[in-house]
Amino acid sequence: MSKAKLWSKGMAIDEKIEQFTIGKDRELDVELAKVDVLGSLAHVQMLNEEGIISDEEFPAIKKGLLAILDAVNAGDFTINEGVEDVHSQVELLLGKEGGRIHTGRSRNDQVLVDLKLFYRVKLDELIKKLISLSGLFLEIADKNKDTLMPGYTHTQVAMTSSFGMWFTAFAEAFKEDAEYLMAIFPIINKNPLGSAAGYGSSFPLNRTRTTELLGFESMHVNPINAQYGRGKSELIMSQALANISLNINKLATDMILYSNENYRFLSLPSALTTGSSIMPHKKNPDVFELIRAYSNSLMNLPSQITMIVSNLTTGYHRDFQLLKEYLFPAFNKVSELLDLIEYTLPRLKITEHIVEDEKYAYLLTVDAVNELVKKGIPFRDAYLQVGKSIEKGQFQKPSKLEHTHEGSLGNLGISAIKDDLEKLTKNNPYRKIEDILSKLISD
Amino acid sequence: MSKAKLWSKGMAIDEKIEQFTIGKDRELDVELAKVDVLGSLAHVQMLNEEGIISDEEFPAIKKGLLAILDAVNAGDFTINEGVEDVHSQVELLLGKEGGRIHTGRSRNDQVLVDLKLFYRVKLDELIKKLISLSGLFLEIADKNKDTLMPGYTHTQVAMTSSFGMWFTAFAEAFKEDAEYLMAIFPIINKNPLGSAAGYGSSFPLNRTRTTELLGFESMHVNPINAQYGRGKSELIMSQALANISLNINKLATDMILYSNENYRFLSLPSALTTGSSIMPHKKNPDVFELIRAYSNSLMNLPSQITMIVSNLTTGYHRDFQLLKEYLFPAFNKVSELLDLIEYTLPRLKITEHIVEDEKYAYLLTVDAVNELVKKGIPFRDAYLQVGKSIEKGQFQKPSKLEHTHEGSLGNLGISAIKDDLEKLTKNNPYRKIEDILSKLISD
Amino acid sequence: MSKAKLWSKGMAIDEKIEQFTIGKDRELDVELAKVDVLGSLAHVQMLNEEGIISDEEFPAIKKGLLAILDAVNAGDFTINEGVEDVHSQVELLLGKEGGRIHTGRSRNDQVLVDLKLFYRVKLDELIKKLISLSGLFLEIADKNKDTLMPGYTHTQVAMTSSFGMWFTAFAEAFKEDAEYLMAIFPIINKNPLGSAAGYGSSFPLNRTRTTELLGFESMHVNPINAQYGRGKSELIMSQALANISLNINKLATDMILYSNENYRFLSLPSALTTGSSIMPHKKNPDVFELIRAYSNSLMNLPSQITMIVSNLTTGYHRDFQLLKEYLFPAFNKVSELLDLIEYTLPRLKITEHIVEDEKYAYLLTVDAVNELVKKGIPFRDAYLQVGKSIEKGQFQKPSKLEHTHEGSLGNLGISAIKDDLEKLTKNNPYRKIEDILSKLISD
Amino acid sequence: MSKAKLWSKGMAIDEKIEQFTIGKDRELDVELAKVDVLGSLAHVQMLNEEGIISDEEFPAIKKGLLAILDAVNAGDFTINEGVEDVHSQVELLLGKEGGRIHTGRSRNDQVLVDLKLFYRVKLDELIKKLISLSGLFLEIADKNKDTLMPGYTHTQVAMTSSFGMWFTAFAEAFKEDAEYLMAIFPIINKNPLGSAAGYGSSFPLNRTRTTELLGFESMHVNPINAQYGRGKSELIMSQALANISLNINKLATDMILYSNENYRFLSLPSALTTGSSIMPHKKNPDVFELIRAYSNSLMNLPSQITMIVSNLTTGYHRDFQLLKEYLFPAFNKVSELLDLIEYTLPRLKITEHIVEDEKYAYLLTVDAVNELVKKGIPFRDAYLQVGKSIEKGQFQKPSKLEHTHEGSLGNLGISAIKDDLEKLTKNNPYRKIEDILSKLISD
Repeated sequence: MSKAKLWSKGMAIDEKIEQFTIGKDRELDVELAKVDVLGSLAHVQMLNEEGIISDEEFPAIKKGLLAILDAVNAGDFTINEGVEDVHSQVELLLGKEGGRIHTGRSRNDQVLVDLKLFYRVKLDELIKKLISLSGLFLEIADKNKDTLMPGYTHTQVAMTSSFGMWFTAFAEAFKEDAEYLMAIFPIINKNPLGSAAGYGSSFPLNRTRTTELLGFESMHVNPINAQYGRGKSELIMSQALANISLNINKLATDMILYSNENYRFLSLPSALTTGSSIMPHKKNPDVFELIRAYSNSLMNLPSQITMIVSNLTTGYHRDFQLLKEYLFPAFNKVSELLDLIEYTLPRLKITEHIVEDEKYAYLLTVDAVNELVKKGIPFRDAYLQVGKSIEKGQFQKPSKLEHTHEGSLGNLGISAIKDDLEKLTKNNPYRKIEDILSKLISD
Repeated sequence: MSKAKLWSKGMAIDEKIEQFTIGKDRELDVELAKVDVLGSLAHVQMLNEEGIISDEEFPAIKKGLLAILDAVNAGDFTINEGVEDVHSQVELLLGKEGGRIHTGRSRNDQVLVDLKLFYRVKLDELIKKLISLSGLFLEIADKNKDTLMPGYTHTQVAMTSSFGMWFTAFAEAFKEDAEYLMAIFPIINKNPLGSAAGYGSSFPLNRTRTTELLGFESMHVNPINAQYGRGKSELIMSQALANISLNINKLATDMILYSNENYRFLSLPSALTTGSSIMPHKKNPDVFELIRAYSNSLMNLPSQITMIVSNLTTGYHRDFQLLKEYLFPAFNKVSELLDLIEYTLPRLKITEHIVEDEKYAYLLTVDAVNELVKKGIPFRDAYLQVGKSIEKGQFQKPSKLEHTHEGSLGNLGISAIKDDLEKLTKNNPYRKIEDILSKLISD
Repeated sequence: MSKAKLWSKGMAIDEKIEQFTIGKDRELDVELAKVDVLGSLAHVQMLNEEGIISDEEFPAIKKGLLAILDAVNAGDFTINEGVEDVHSQVELLLGKEGGRIHTGRSRNDQVLVDLKLFYRVKLDELIKKLISLSGLFLEIADKNKDTLMPGYTHTQVAMTSSFGMWFTAFAEAFKEDAEYLMAIFPIINKNPLGSAAGYGSSFPLNRTRTTELLGFESMHVNPINAQYGRGKSELIMSQALANISLNINKLATDMILYSNENYRFLSLPSALTTGSSIMPHKKNPDVFELIRAYSNSLMNLPSQITMIVSNLTTGYHRDFQLLKEYLFPAFNKVSELLDLIEYTLPRLKITEHIVEDEKYAYLLTVDAVNELVKKGIPFRDAYLQVGKSIEKGQFQKPSKLEHTHEGSLGNLGISAIKDDLEKLTKNNPYRKIEDILSKLISD
Repeated sequence: MSKAKLWSKGMAIDEKIEQFTIGKDRELDVELAKVDVLGSLAHVQMLNEEGIISDEEFPAIKKGLLAILDAVNAGDFTINEGVEDVHSQVELLLGKEGGRIHTGRSRNDQVLVDLKLFYRVKLDELIKKLISLSGLFLEIADKNKDTLMPGYTHTQVAMTSSFGMWFTAFAEAFKEDAEYLMAIFPIINKNPLGSAAGYGSSFPLNRTRTTELLGFESMHVNPINAQYGRGKSELIMSQALANISLNINKLATDMILYSNENYRFLSLPSALTTGSSIMPHKKNPDVFELIRAYSNSLMNLPSQITMIVSNLTTGYHRDFQLLKEYLFPAFNKVSELLDLIEYTLPRLKITEHIVEDEKYAYLLTVDAVNELVKKGIPFRDAYLQVGKSIEKGQFQKPSKLEHTHEGSLGNLGISAIKDDLEKLTKNNPYRKIEDILSKLISD
C-alpha cells in the first residue's frame, strides 16, 4: 500500500497507524480536486515562464492537468484506494510528468492554496444564497406589510410590530451577512503558494505571477505566516458560518414560539409538521427545532476550531488536517438550513387580526405618550400620565397608528434593502475571478 | 433610591433585586459617557431640524450636553449612587431639559448607538496598535535578517528558517489582523438610532440625518434587525479579538519553547523572568505563559457571547446587558497583551550560530534535493536519492543557501509589508469620522 | 519591592512585568488564607513527627500558624502591598520560623493543597444550598399540587401537567445536582501534598500522614499527576457548576415565558420587576433574564478552562494561575443565583384555572386514548380513533383525570425526594472532615 | 412512506422535510436496538404483572422481543428504509402485538430509557479500557523505573524526573478517570421509564418494578425532570469523555515534544511515523498530532452539547435528537484513541543517560538545597547559598539522589495504584447489572 506514498522511501508504515492518520482525507479531498488542479496549472505555468519547467515539458503537463479537470467536472474523479490524498492522486494520474509539478512546492502550500481557492468558491456560493434568501424575505414582507403583530421586549408585550417589519428584519440580517462575507473575502483571498513547507523554497519562484494567475487579491508574503494561515483562515470562515447561523437560530426560535397555541401568529402546514406517538392532536414544528439545534452546533464551530489550533508553535502540525473534517460539512449544513428556510417560508400561513385580542391592549402606550409629547408635554411627564391611566384601568388607545420614519411600520424600507442586494450582486468579487480562471484553463 | 429610575412610576423596587439587575452597569457605563453624549447631540440636533424640539429649547440642551462632554473629557464624570446607568445620569445632569432628549428614543436604541460609537473607537485604537506593533516586528526582523534558525514542521526539525523570517511572520500576521479590523469596520459602523425599543417610533425621525451627523457608513434600516445587532455586533467584535489573540498565542507559545534549555534560540533578560520558590537556578518565562493563558481566555470570548445570545427570540432581552461585562474588559486585555509584547520585544536576546549544531544537520535536505532537480533530475528521483544518502549516513549539505523569491530567506519582503502598513494608516476610516464628530460638537 | 519575593536572589524584576504576572493573585489569594494555614499546620506536624522539624522548633511554628488562623477567622488577614501571594504572606508573618514551613514543599504543591481544601469547602457549601433549595421547591410544590397547568412538548400544548409537578421537577433536579457533587467529592478530595514542584522531594516525607491529618480520602500518589490535577480539578469543578447552571437556566427560561402575557401561568410581584424607559405598562422579568444570562456564562466556564489547560505538556505552567481568576468568582455567582431563586420563589403568584381555556382543549387526548386501551382496544387503534375525532371536531374529554403511578400528577413523590435530601444531609462527607480539622488546630 | 410512521393519521408529510428531520436517526438508532428491546421487555413484564397486559398476551410478546434480541446479537437487525427509528422497527417486527408494548409509554421515555441503558454499557466499556491501559502504563513504568529524565516546570528544566515517574503519572491519571466514571455511574443509572411524554401516564404503572428489572440504581421520580435528564445525562457523559481526553491530550503533547530533535527522550519506530513530500529526512509523529487534535475536539464536546440544550423550556424538544449525533461517535473516538495509545506504548524506544547532558546540569539544585537544610541551615538561607553558587558557576551536584517518600523517584507507588485498579474491577457496578439483565431475558 505504501507504494503510493509520495514520501515513501521504501519502508513500510504500520497499517493501523496509516488508517488512523489518513482519516477522512480521501473522501474530503475529493471536494478539493478541481481547485487542486487549478493551483497546479498556475504553478507549472509560472515554472515554465521562469524557465524551471522547459517549453518542451510544459504542454504535456498542462494537457494532463486539463484532462484531469475535465474528469473532475464530469464527476469522474476519485481517489484510489491506497492513495493518500488528492495531491498524490493528481500526480499519479499525470504519470511520469507528475513529479515535475511538485517542483518548488510542498504538500503544505499545495493544500493551503487548494483551501484558499475552495473557500473563495464557498464564500461566493453563500453570498449568492444569502442574497436570494434576503430577496425572498423582502417579497413576503411586502405581501404582509399591513398585518400587525405584537412586538416584544423582555418576552413581554411591548409595542406594535407587523409581519412586514418582522420579515424585513430577517431580509436585512441575511443581507448584512452577505456584506460581511464580501468584507472578509479579500482577507481570505491571499496567495500562500510559494511558502512550500512553511519556510520558502530555493527555487526562484515568481509568487507575484501565481497571485495574478489565480486571481488572488494579494499574497501572504511571509512563508511562516502563510503556513499558519491554516487555522486562521478556517477560524475566520467558521466565524462567518456562525454569524449566519445566529440569524438562522433567531428565525427558528421565533417560528417555534409564534406557531404554538399561546401565540398562533402563524402556522405551518401539516405536511411540514410531525406528530406524536401518543398524542393524536400534535402538529410539531420539528423542522424548526432541528434547524435551531443545527444552528447551535454551527455556532459552536469556531470554538471547536480554536481548540485545535491553540497553544501550537509556528510551523505546520498534522492537527490541522482535522480542520477540514469539521469545516467542510459545516458549509453544507449551513447551505441546507438556508435551503430549508427558503422552502418553508412561502408555505407559512400568517394569522390576521392578532393585535385585537385584549392581551395586547397596551401595545400602543408609547404612541399615547408620544401624542402627548407632540402636544407639548415633556416626555417624562407624559410617561407618568399614561402610566397612571394604566394603573387605574383607564388607558385609552390613540385613534391611529402613524409611523413614518425609515424602517418604521409605515415605511419599511424594503426598496433600500433591495438596492443593497443589487449592489452586492454587482460587486461580488468572484465574477472577476471567474474570468481570470477561465483564462488559466484555456489552451 | 427608585427616584432616579427613568421608568419609575412611584412603586418601590426590591433592593436585593435592584442590586442584582444593575450589576456592573454603573462602572462599565462610565466608559460610554462620551459616546452617549455624542449620540444625544446628534439626536437632538435632528429633532430640532425636524421641528420636534423647538429653536428656543435647542441651544440650552446642546449647551448642557457640551458641558457634560467637557466634564467627561476632564475625567470628572461619574454615575451617582442610586442612578441606574449612563443615560439616566446624563438626563439628570441636564436638569429640566433632560426629559426632552429621550423624545423619539428608547434606552434600547440609545445604548445601541452608544455601543456602535464605542466599538468604532476601540477598532480604531486596535488598528493603530497593530500597525505600530507590526512595524516594530519588521524593524527587529530587519536587524536579525541574516541570523539563521531551524524551521520546524510536525515539531520536528525541517528546513532552514531565520530570525528575520520568524519576526516577519508576526509582522505580517498582525498587519493582516489590522486589515481584518478595517474590513469589518463598515459592518459595525451602521446606525441603529431611531429603532427605539426595537419597533420604531411614531415621531417623524430623520434617520438619514443622524446617520450623517454621527459619521455612520449606513444604517440598520429595520428596527428589529437594529435591535438584534446587539449580540451580533458583540459577536463580531469578539471574533476580531479572538483572531488577534490567536497571533498572540502563537507568539507566546514560540517564545516559551524557544527560550527553554532544549532550544535556547533566545533568552529573556532576568528582569523579565521570575524565579522558583525551591529551585535557585530557575528563570521562568511567566510573562509569556500568562500572555498565552490570557490569549486562550480571549479566544473563548466568542463562545461565551454565543451562549448568551443563542435560542432567544427577536426583541430586546435583558440578557444582553452581560455582553458589556464580558466584552469591555476584553478590549483592555488585548491592548495590555499587545503592549507587553511591544515592551518585551526589543529586550529579547537572540542566539547566533544555532544551526551549526549537529542536531540540525538535515535542515538542508530540501535544498539538496532542489539542487539535483535544477541539474535535471526529476523531483521524486532526487527526493529518493537524498533520502538514501541520509539512511546511509552519507548526506552532504549543499555548499550555499540561495533563496530569492518574495518572502524567502534572502528576500523577506519587509518593504512590501511596510507599504501595506502605510496604506492602512492612510485608509483608516476613523480619520474622516473624527472630522464629522468635531463638527457635531462645535457650537 | 522584590524583597518579599520568596525566590528573590537579589536581582530586580521589571515592575511592569511584575504587576502583570501577579495579576489578581493578591486579592484572590485572600480566599485561600485559611486553608493555606491548615495545609501548613498538617505539613509541619508531619515534619515534626518525622524528625525533620525538631520538637524545640515545632511549638513556636504551630503557635504562629494558629495566630494567623485566628486573624483570618477574625477577618484581619490581608496580603501586604509588595507581597506576591498568600504563601509568602504567611511565611512573612511567621517571622524567622517562616522559612521552616517550606521544607520539603514547593509553592506548587502548597497551592495545590490549598485549592483542594478550598474546593472541598465550596462543594460542601453548594451541597447544603442545593439541599435547602430543593426542600423549598418541595414545599411550594406541595402547596400547589392540585393546580393544573398545561404541559408542553415541542413548545406545543401536549398533556396535563400541574404546578406541583413542575415545582417538583426542579426539586428533584437540584437534589440530583447535590448527589452529583457528593459523587465527585472523593475525586477532588485527594492529597497532592508532597509532590513539591511536580517531581517529589528528597526529604523523607510521610504523605500518608498528611493525607490523614487533612481528612483527605486518598492521595495523588504520583507527583506529576498530582501537579496536573491542577487544571483537571478545576475542569471537574467547573463542570459541576455548569450542571447546576443548566437547572438554573431551565428554571429562568420557564419563568420568563410562563409570566408573559401569552402564558400568564404566574406573575412576579411588581417589586421584583423593572420598567421600561418608554413603555409605561411594562413589568419586566429582568431578574430572571439576568439569571438566565449568567447561567449561560457559567455553562461556558468548562470551555474557558479547557482552552487554558489544553495542549500543554506535563509539569507546572504559570498559565494555571488564571484558573483561579475564572473559577473563584464562578462559585460566588452560582451561590448568588441560587440565593436569588430562593428569594423570589415564595413571592411568585400562581394562576388558577389555566387549563380551562379552550386553547388547552386537547391536553387530555392521551388520557382519552388510554381509556379506550383500558377497555381493550389496542393502543395504535385507539390512537387513530381519537385522532379522527379531533380532525372532525368531535373530541370529548375524558370525565376524570386519574394518574396514580410514582411521580404522576396524583402521586408526586414529594416524600421520596424529601427522604433523599435527608440521606444527603446525613452522608455529607464534610462532617467527618470538620472533626478531623478541628483536631488539627487544637493545641 | 408515511405508512411506517407511528403517529401517522393518514396525512402525507413533505418528503424534503421528512428526510431532514429523520437525519441520521436510522443509522444511529441501530446502536440502540439491543437496549430498546431490553427496555421493552421490562416494560411489558411490569404491564403483565400489573394486569395491564394479560397473561394470554404476554408470552407471545416476550417471545417476539427475545427473537428480535437474538437477531440483534447475531448482527441481523436493521432499520428498514421508510421506518423512522428503532422503536418503530421493533414494533413493526412484533407484528400485531407490537402496538401493545407502547401502552403507558411514549417514544420520549422509551428513548430516554434506551439511552440510559446504552450509557451504562459505554461507561462500563470505558472503565474496563481505562483499567487495562492504566495497567499497561504501570508495567512500562516499572520496566523504566531507573531511567532518569529531566522534569520541567514553566517549560524550563527543573528537577530530576524519570521515565518510571512519567509513565506512572499517566497510569494514575487514567485510573482516576476510571474512578470518576464509577462515581457518576449511579447519577446516570436512574430510571426514566414511566415519565411518558414528560408528564406521566394515566396507566397504573409500577415504576419501582421496572427500576428493579432493569438494574437501575434508583428512578427519576418526577416525569418533567426525567425528561430533561435528556441533555443533562448527555452533558455529564460528554464531560466524562472530555476529562479522559485531557489525559490523552497531555500524553500526546508530551510525546510530540519529547520525540523531537531538541529533546530526543524517546523515539517512535519508523513504522509509526510518516514522511514529508519534500524533506527526505523526516519521521513525523503524525499519529500523536492527530490524537492531540482529536482530543481537543472531544474536549469541545460539552460546549457543543451545552449550546444545544441551553435556553430551552422544560418539556421535550426535537433539538435533543442531535445529541446522539454528537455523542455517539465521540464514544467511539475516545475508544479508538485509547486503543492507539495501547498499541503504540510498547513500541516506544526510551533514551538512556539523557540527564548527563550539560544542559541538565541544574536538575539537582533542590536536592543540593535540601542537603544543606538537612544539615540544619534554614531553607531560605540554603536556597540563597545555592543560588549564589550557580551565579558564580561553582554549583556542585549532590553526590547521590535519594528520594524515598510515596510516589517519589525511589518509591513510585506502582503497587498502590495496582491495588486501586483491582478494587475498581471488583466494584464495577455493571457486574451486578449483567446478572439482573440475564434474568430479564431468561424465558
